[in-house]
Amino acid sequence: MTDTVKYTLSESDLPTHWYNLAADLPQPLPPVLHPGTKQPVGPEDLAPLFPMALIQQEVSTEREIEIPRPVRDIYRQWRPTPLYRARRLEQALGTPAKIFYKYEGVSPAGSHKPNTAVAQAFFNKEAGIRRIATETGAGQWGSALALSGALFGLDIDVYMVKVSYQQKPYRRALMEAYGARCVPSPSAETASGRAVLAQYPDSRGSLGIAISEAVEIAAGRPDTNYALGSVLNHVLLHQTVIGLECQRQMQLADAWPDVLVGCTGGGSNFAGMVFPFLGDQLRTRRSMRIVAVEPAACPTLTRGRYAYDFGDTAHLTPLVKMHTLGSTFVPPGFHAGGLRYHGMAPMISHLLNLGLMDAVAYTQNDVFSAGVQFARAEGILPAPEANHAVKGAIEEAVRCREEGVARTILFNLCGHGHFDMQAYMDYFAGKLEDRTYDEAELAMALAGLPAVA
Amino acid sequence: MTDTVKYTLSESDLPTHWYNLAADLPQPLPPVLHPGTKQPVGPEDLAPLFPMALIQQEVSTEREIEIPRPVRDIYRQWRPTPLYRARRLEQALGTPAKIFYKYEGVSPAGSHKPNTAVAQAFFNKEAGIRRIATETGAGQWGSALALSGALFGLDIDVYMVKVSYQQKPYRRALMEAYGARCVPSPSAETASGRAVLAQYPDSRGSLGIAISEAVEIAAGRPDTNYALGSVLNHVLLHQTVIGLECQRQMQLADAWPDVLVGCTGGGSNFAGMVFPFLGDQLRTRRSMRIVAVEPAACPTLTRGRYAYDFGDTAHLTPLVKMHTLGSTFVPPGFHAGGLRYHGMAPMISHLLNLGLMDAVAYTQNDVFSAGVQFARAEGILPAPEANHAVKGAIEEAVRCREEGVARTILFNLCGHGHFDMQAYMDYFAGKLEDRTYDEAELAMALAGLPAVA
Repeated sequence: MTDTVKYTLSESDLPTHWYNLAADLPQPLPPVLHPGTKQPVGPEDLAPLFPMALIQQEVSTEREIEIPRPVRDIYRQWRPTPLYRARRLEQALGTPAKIFYKYEGVSPAGSHKPNTAVAQAFFNKEAGIRRIATETGAGQWGSALALSGALFGLDIDVYMVKVSYQQKPYRRALMEAYGARCVPSPSAETASGRAVLAQYPDSRGSLGIAISEAVEIAAGRPDTNYALGSVLNHVLLHQTVIGLECQRQMQLADAWPDVLVGCTGGGSNFAGMVFPFLGDQLRTRRSMRIVAVEPAACPTLTRGRYAYDFGDTAHLTPLVKMHTLGSTFVPPGFHAGGLRYHGMAPMISHLLNLGLMDAVAYTQNDVFSAGVQFARAEGILPAPEANHAVKGAIEEAVRCREEGVARTILFNLCGHGHFDMQAYMDYFAGKLEDRTYDEAELAMALAGLPAVA
Repeated sequence: MTDTVKYTLSESDLPTHWYNLAADLPQPLPPVLHPGTKQPVGPEDLAPLFPMALIQQEVSTEREIEIPRPVRDIYRQWRPTPLYRARRLEQALGTPAKIFYKYEGVSPAGSHKPNTAVAQAFFNKEAGIRRIATETGAGQWGSALALSGALFGLDIDVYMVKVSYQQKPYRRALMEAYGARCVPSPSAETASGRAVLAQYPDSRGSLGIAISEAVEIAAGRPDTNYALGSVLNHVLLHQTVIGLECQRQMQLADAWPDVLVGCTGGGSNFAGMVFPFLGDQLRTRRSMRIVAVEPAACPTLTRGRYAYDFGDTAHLTPLVKMHTLGSTFVPPGFHAGGLRYHGMAPMISHLLNLGLMDAVAYTQNDVFSAGVQFARAEGILPAPEANHAVKGAIEEAVRCREEGVARTILFNLCGHGHFDMQAYMDYFAGKLEDRTYDEAELAMALAGLPAVA
C-alpha cells in the first residue's frame, strides 16, 4: 500500500509575520469608496467598526506584518498544521502528478477561520472593545469568532442567516457552547432587520442582510465593533500563515507547486494559501498556475462583473471594487454555505482582472463525488466547501495523466466535514440538485449595481 | 492571558512498539472460559473470529509488541497527537494543580478509535480476510473501522444499534462515506437478530445484540472476521500508543502525573493512556492515583459485580471475568453512547480488583457542565464520553485547591464533540435527565449471571 506522507513543522517554524501581498502587487488595488460621496474612504470612516490596528492592516503596503505574541500563543494550539502528500489519491487516480494538501481542519473549530478570528479578537480586546457583532452563514465563521471570544473574554453576537439558524442547529449549538449569542437574521433587533421583516415577514435571510444587521449594531455602540470572516484585506492577511507554512513544508518535501488550487466564497482560505506563493512568483517570475474553484450556483469569479458594489443588502458598507453578482443576488440552495456570498475579496478580484489567476465553477454532485473519492483514499472527510478544492485538484491531476506530465499540485483542505453530514446524506440519497442560477435574476441584480464614475 | 502550552513530538518519536501490561501484572489475568465446557479457551476457539496475530497478542505476556510498519505509516497521518497543559482551565478553577491533557480528537474519525481499528484491519488483511463484521453503538468505533477498511481495501459491515441508527444518521453517513455498509440491529440478517425481532418486533437494539449479530456473521463465513472496538486485551494494547507518547511529552514538560484520569465504557482509551504509566509504577513502586470515570447510568466499575459473564446478549462469546452489570442489563438513555456497555475490559476489572486503581461515577448534567467549562477555557469541545474524564480531572483539581496541594493531573481527551451537538443542545435546553438505573433491573441482571465454579 502506498501511504500518505506528512510534512510536519515544529512550533519554532510557526511564522512570526503575516505576508501582505499589497507590497508586491504590480498595480495597486482600486480604492474603497464612501457610498455617499463616492470618494475614497479614510481610516476615520472605518473607525466606528474596526480597531485602528486592523484598519492600518487593511491599507498597509508593508510586506511583513508582525503576528502579536498572544495571537501566536493561541495559533500554537493547533499550528503549524500538517501538509500531506496524497499518495493514495494519486494512486487511485493513476496520475503522474504529485498532489499535496494543507489541512486546516485540525483547529478547534474544524476550519481555517480561527486564523483570523483569533487575530481580530486580539486587536479588538487591545482597543478596549467589549463586544463584537458579526454575521454567519453556514456557521464556520461564527463558531470561530465564538471560540476566539471565549479565549479573550469578549461578548460575541452572531447574526445567523435564518434558514441556517433553523437548518443547522448544531453549528449554532457550537457557538452557544463557546458562550456566544446567536440571533436569527433578519431580526427585530435592528432597523435593517425590521425593514426586511416589514416587507418580507417570512424572509429566510441572506448573508447580505445579516452583515447589515451586524454593521448597524456595531456602528451604533461605542463598546461594540464589527468583524468579517472573509473578503477584507486584513482577513486575507491573517490567513497567510497557511501559505507561509506550506512554503516551508514544500521545501521539506523537496518540491514546489506548479499548480495551486483553492475554493473561493469570500476568498480568505484561497488567499491564505496562494498569496505567499504568488508574491514569490511576482518577485521571481516563477511560472505557476493558480486556480480558484467556486460553485456553479454562485459563480462570482466566472460569471460576476468586476465593478464597485456594496458588501451588504442594506447598503451600509463602503463600495468596493470586486467581482460581484450584485448585492441583491440570492443563489439557489446548495450545500456549501460558506461559498454563497454575492461578492469576492477585492484583492482576489484584482488578481483575476490582472490575469494572474484562473477561476472555474462546478456543480455540487461532481464536487461531492470528488470529496467522497478523497475521503476513501486519504481518510479525511472534507467540508463541502473544501470539496470544491478537491474537485479542482483532481481535475488538474487527471489532466496531468492525459498529457503525461508530472506536475506538482497543492491545494488547501480548509476544513473537515463533521458538521456537514446532512449534505453527505443528501448526496448519497441522490437529493442534491445541480441547479446553477437564474439568468434573469442575475441580470437584474447586475443591473442594480451602483453607478460609480 | 495565560495560555495553553502544547508539547509536540516529532514523527521519529512515534512509538515503534505497543506496551503490554500483562508483562508487569502482579497476578495474571483469570483465564477466558469456553461457554459450554467452562474450561479455558485455546487459540483455536478464537480462530473463526480473529486472525492468529491478534489472538497471540490477546494472550501474550511479552512487554513490547512491535507495531508493523504499515500501521505506523498510517498512525503518522495524525500521530503523535498533542499533549496540552490546560493553563487557562487551571486559572479558571483557581487551582494550584497542573492539568495536562492528551488530545486524540485530531484523528480523521475524531477519536482514539482508529489506533486499534487500523491495526486490526492490517492484521486481518495480512491473514487474507476480505470482510470484517462489527457492531457499533454511538458510531465512533464503526466509523473508525470504516475508515480503516477504506485504507486497507476491506469490506466493513457494521451492525449499528437500531436506536442509534435512527437517531444518529450523521455517524452512519460518515461510515457510508468511507464505503462501509451499515445495518440497523437487530436485523433479519442473522439468527440472533431474527430471534430478538420475533420476541420484540419493536426492539431498539443494544450493543449486546449487535455484538451477537456481528459474531454470528463472522463465525459463519471463512472470508469474514469479527472486530471489537474495546474490552479485549489486544484492543487495549493498540491504544497504548497514547500513554507511550504521553510519557515522552511529560518528560518534555519536565513533569510527571500524580493523578491519571480517563473515562471508561469498555475501557480502551483509559487503558491506552494509563497502562504505560501503570507499568512504570509497578516496576518502580512510584506512587500514583489512577481514576476511571464512568456514567452513573451505567456504573460498571462502581456498581457491577466482578464475575464471569458473556460479552453479548445471545451468549455467543466466551466467558470473561470482568466487572459487569449482567449481559441483560440495559442502561437508561443518556448522551454518551460509547459508555453504555454492560461489561468492562477484563484487564481493567482485574486492576480494580487488585486495588491498583479507583473508579467514580457522575450523572450527565454535571459531566456536560464540566465539558462546557473546558470548551470555554481551552477551545476544544469534547465528546460526551470525554466530558466524563474532564469532570474527573476538574474534581481532582478542585480537591488540590481545597487541600492546597499542587498535584500534576493528566487526563485523556479521547475525542471531539462535533458529532454530538444534539447532546449539547439538549443540555443547554435543560432536557438532560440525571437518571441513574433501575435497582430492581440491575438485581435481576446480576442474578442471571452464568454459574462458574
